Amino acid sequence: IMGYGSGSVSQHLGAAVAMIEGPVSVKGVTRLVQIDENKCVIDGTLDGLTPGKNQLSIHELGDISLGCESCGKIYNPPNSSDKKPIGDLGQVLADETGRAVFRMESDKIKVWDVIGRSMIIAGAKASVLSRMGCGIIARSAGLFQNSKKICAC
Amino acid sequence: IMGYGSGSVSQHLGAAVAMIEGPVSVKGVTRLVQIDENKCVIDGTLDGLTPGKNQLSIHELGDISLGCESCGKIYNPPNSSDKKPIGDLGQVLADETGRAVFRMESDKIKVWDVIGRSMIIAGAKASVLSRMGCGIIARSAGLFQNSKKICAC
Ligand SMILES: [Zn+2]
Ligand SMILES: [Zn+2]
Repeated sequence: IMGYGSGSVSQHLGAAVAMIEGPVSVKGVTRLVQIDENKCVIDGTLDGLTPGKNQLSIHELGDISLGCESCGKIYNPPNSSDKKPIGDLGQVLADETGRAVFRMESDKIKVWDVIGRSMIIAGAKASVLSRMGCGIIARSAGLFQNSKKICAC
Repeated sequence: IMGYGSGSVSQHLGAAVAMIEGPVSVKGVTRLVQIDENKCVIDGTLDGLTPGKNQLSIHELGDISLGCESCGKIYNPPNSSDKKPIGDLGQVLADETGRAVFRMESDKIKVWDVIGRSMIIAGAKASVLSRMGCGIIARSAGLFQNSKKICAC
């Protein structure tokens, strides 16, 4: 992961990985690392996207038994006071080849609250129909030995 | 799910689903429903197994980025006093077509502790090499509308 040292075990409070897949072309990996109580770093590389803006979000359920449609709505804990659901991670930009490489930080997402839920990439006008890829957010040791493959960096 | 009423929303404290897949032939679904504080019902149907005994277990990590090999060891919480790891769910029996249909109860597994980890089916002599299929244990609404397809019952 860019910025936390290379290949060695970095200190963190928890880590997760979501392998993203879609019915058509989307494929990729996103990773979540809880650096401290108030900082979750989310990074990833996604391929097969529509060039331009795409919407990244964490959804309530990790249930992909009916594909990306059974993942429920965007994750928002009941005690959230924000207007925007905290699972709404905003937009990631795909280049002309359909690849998006991103890294963001959140002071609201806690990795232990989202493990078992899902990560969804959707078209810019996010709706159930535009869900292009999804993956379960799975508990990880956070070693990320295969970071070169994932990061394309 | 057999025994909790048919198709309607049954009361539970939490539910999860793991879609199992393997590199060769294994495919199936397992479901976990926490009925009360001390009762987790685990059921499922798995196809493509070797007829006879197979080993079912919950593993520490849900990381399947390197297939069933990156799921870590059998889940056992640090405070467990049992000799056997609590993630060791014992054996399930596949019929001559390679199908295993099972239902078990655990007073040790709590669904909220295993969400984000993985379910693994392995040959009778469980070892990393014999891991025949795995899936991330994902958070589910627990409605299981498609229970007929899953249960073959
Ligand atoms: Zn990186
Ligand atoms: Zn059933």
